[in-house]
Amino acid sequence: MNEIQAPIYEALMKHQSGDPVSFHVPGHRYGDAIRQWIASKQPGQSGYYPLSSVMEIDVTELSSTDDLHHPEACIAEAERLAAHCFGADHTYLLVGGSTSGNVAMMLTLCQPGDLIIVQRNVHKSIINGLKLAGASAVFLAPQYDAHSGLATVPSLQQLEQALQRYPKAKGVMFSTPNYYGMNTPLQPYVELTHHYDKPFIVDEAHGAHYSMHPALPTSAIYAGADAVVQSTHKTLLAMTMGAMLHVQGSRIDLADVREQLSMVQSSSPSFPIMASLDISRAIIDREKERLFHKALLLAEQFRSWLEERQLIIQDINGRTLLRNNELQYDPLRMVLFDISGQLSGVHLHKELERDGCWPEMSDVRYVVLVVNVSVTEEDMKRLKQSLLRIHQTVAASYESKPSVVIPALEPSQGDGIGAPVAFHRGAYEQAKTIQVPLREAAGRLSAENVIPYPPGIPLLYRGEPITEEAIQQISRLASVGAKFQGASDAKMQSIAVIHE
Amino acid sequence: MNEIQAPIYEALMKHQSGDPVSFHVPGHRYGDAIRQWIASKQPGQSGYYPLSSVMEIDVTELSSTDDLHHPEACIAEAERLAAHCFGADHTYLLVGGSTSGNVAMMLTLCQPGDLIIVQRNVHKSIINGLKLAGASAVFLAPQYDAHSGLATVPSLQQLEQALQRYPKAKGVMFSTPNYYGMNTPLQPYVELTHHYDKPFIVDEAHGAHYSMHPALPTSAIYAGADAVVQSTHKTLLAMTMGAMLHVQGSRIDLADVREQLSMVQSSSPSFPIMASLDISRAIIDREKERLFHKALLLAEQFRSWLEERQLIIQDINGRTLLRNNELQYDPLRMVLFDISGQLSGVHLHKELERDGCWPEMSDVRYVVLVVNVSVTEEDMKRLKQSLLRIHQTVAASYESKPSVVIPALEPSQGDGIGAPVAFHRGAYEQAKTIQVPLREAAGRLSAENVIPYPPGIPLLYRGEPITEEAIQQISRLASVGAKFQGASDAKMQSIAVIHE
Repeated sequence: MNEIQAPIYEALMKHQSGDPVSFHVPGHRYGDAIRQWIASKQPGQSGYYPLSSVMEIDVTELSSTDDLHHPEACIAEAERLAAHCFGADHTYLLVGGSTSGNVAMMLTLCQPGDLIIVQRNVHKSIINGLKLAGASAVFLAPQYDAHSGLATVPSLQQLEQALQRYPKAKGVMFSTPNYYGMNTPLQPYVELTHHYDKPFIVDEAHGAHYSMHPALPTSAIYAGADAVVQSTHKTLLAMTMGAMLHVQGSRIDLADVREQLSMVQSSSPSFPIMASLDISRAIIDREKERLFHKALLLAEQFRSWLEERQLIIQDINGRTLLRNNELQYDPLRMVLFDISGQLSGVHLHKELERDGCWPEMSDVRYVVLVVNVSVTEEDMKRLKQSLLRIHQTVAASYESKPSVVIPALEPSQGDGIGAPVAFHRGAYEQAKTIQVPLREAAGRLSAENVIPYPPGIPLLYRGEPITEEAIQQISRLASVGAKFQGASDAKMQSIAVIHE
Repeated sequence: MNEIQAPIYEALMKHQSGDPVSFHVPGHRYGDAIRQWIASKQPGQSGYYPLSSVMEIDVTELSSTDDLHHPEACIAEAERLAAHCFGADHTYLLVGGSTSGNVAMMLTLCQPGDLIIVQRNVHKSIINGLKLAGASAVFLAPQYDAHSGLATVPSLQQLEQALQRYPKAKGVMFSTPNYYGMNTPLQPYVELTHHYDKPFIVDEAHGAHYSMHPALPTSAIYAGADAVVQSTHKTLLAMTMGAMLHVQGSRIDLADVREQLSMVQSSSPSFPIMASLDISRAIIDREKERLFHKALLLAEQFRSWLEERQLIIQDINGRTLLRNNELQYDPLRMVLFDISGQLSGVHLHKELERDGCWPEMSDVRYVVLVVNVSVTEEDMKRLKQSLLRIHQTVAASYESKPSVVIPALEPSQGDGIGAPVAFHRGAYEQAKTIQVPLREAAGRLSAENVIPYPPGIPLLYRGEPITEEAIQQISRLASVGAKFQGASDAKMQSIAVIHE
């Protein structure tokens, strides 16, 4: 096997090989403290081994390492290699997840009071970024895929109208692909936005692997976006919280990005996470397309099997179910559902877990499975066995009448371009709020963000008028087990509204 | 050895023991992808082992784990156990370091335009928190320890004057102990602040181990502070970025803290970091004072040795050098300096590194060494050997005339209570800035934060008038190798000022 070139990891191993005596933080001293106080066991056994092992390279800013907030040595080199690998002009390694990249981009683009055009169904970290920036957002309603009912991105026409209507907008922010691996080719959006001389930013958290193989969709970087945030940990090989922010062109101020990132990331960033980003990139550089061959093949074989067996569980990205030229589907993401409408996605999720197959997330209808590069034939066999069991034993015992209510996601009224919503902190904090039953909340202004999780897309923003449609969506999601992070009533039978 | 009770770690190991098949993020699939693409080696050898090992427990929010932003299972239990261990009413586990706790507390206390009383020499994360909150700060100048010249906390009299002058202040924020392990007993400050019915918040990043042994200083929690942020990774046993926010009493809104933390921390928080916090707490619960016996003993023996040998290197926390009833010294932090004034702290730092002894940080005069719980006799022997070498070979070859210029840190003029400084974002972003030679910058308004790192305490805030004293301090620190993160001129021969 060829060696890989991973400068951060190599710097950490080199430091370790010098038999250093630690009189610095962290206090575990390369894991010695854990090994001393907890009996270590061998890998594969339960014990405390996984942590004491990683701690060997869990160091701080030393003259032998580097400083993420002011990189000059191995981190600077790792960022240069990452930019080359992902097709960007400059790449920032992130230790605070895509969250930190999204927040930093909002802070970079927007001063208080500035306005930005934002896809409505963005990840909550972008809304948090708007709040911290004190910006206002013009939201563009997403399009809904007619076949699946899932939200994608706004239309090109909508974006053009918004760009015309708001010439002072500081840029455009999209979140795509969605959690279900549905992607809209972005090049026309980028070109349109650049025609108005504004930056086009993409939260591509679920697409870190895009453009890495001809069978995978095109990444936003190759579509020309000015800045792209990717969760390297989600679909590539980094540790959780390891992400990257890629920048290209001249519309983004690199020094400003670095400054904003230092506002929202730890001043003691994790070297193991940085090293895992570095190694993830290094493996791609060495393996290239080959890294994805097996997973793509196994996913394709699985889909064929699913269709040939005519199970009641199918994949919306199945081979015959859907071909839509407007959308790209991530072949490494399976979106399973019960075509008879008897099993909810949440229920199907639980049934898969019973057999030791752990999906990524589920909603009223769908369960999402991520197929990652180290997937094996045995893994797919266990998934097939589980689906056969569910098909044969669970589904057979259900009523023949569909029991799953699928939210009817209507296209937005009018042109889908909202009035600007001010996201400065404190906008409603001083207002008096009252708790009312959800079913009686129509027409009120919500005093809380209502965010079913996953996928973490807000149904209501604080200060937003509550519609009947929103009430129905919330009720349905709550009834099938979605979690509402930070809700005043975790069961969402009531809601906090602004008392006027 | 008794078992430890660590619910997060146990949940992760239990999940792993169920032989799960991962169809979820992260994409490394419990480290399989790393093991598959990179040859694993055994611990102790160089190789890729440390990362693939920790990845076994690097999972996401599953029904078998929990959700940091809405904890209901193992994380909720781990936080309850941590609160009990550290003497708080409620504890939040942090994966974004003390940075995330400090920023979240500023966001919790301050709406835009609100005013807060802040110790001037706070960590930059608190200033970032003020900016993100849009708050204004009244800065209190620190006191300077006459013996060491090091900044500690403002005086009690100063705080009282500020509380009287600014009755609308939302609270008081201190950063203590300082990087050198110097701590001022906080109880009188807390009682005074509570007399004005305001919350007293402490960034106790360097004091996570306080109050854990009778020989250690009292923690801010036991001094009665309403909220205390601690870097568990610095002096206890957590992985880097693992920290805790402790809250007690009724002045802090717990739900608001959770909401602000979700603004500034990843929506995919790292389970290994959370598990390391949990295990760190569990080891303390089991070992109690015993955990610190050996390190305290070895540190004391080292100080005796240092004095008996009459080396030119001594410890400001030495046994005979300094006894000051107003200050407490962390016995597990050694602050070494050349009593003859020939070796700068930065130079001494480099000499120690030459012998494989890696200090925490250094400045013009001092080098700081952290003595952590797993320190060994052999480690201390190597440190002694290094100091003997430095004493005998390096120091002997120097001129007898002191060559280290120690910054003369004068007490602040007047009462040390600054006028409110507005930290809303964009305050000076629109202003025109010019670059001028540092030596000609007196009287100008700085257009940048000037932060020597370590210790990361700003000498100038953006928008602040530049004094001759500040110019001299900056020049001296730059000349001995301090780093100025994000400075317009890394060498600090020039500075960006606001063009008026």
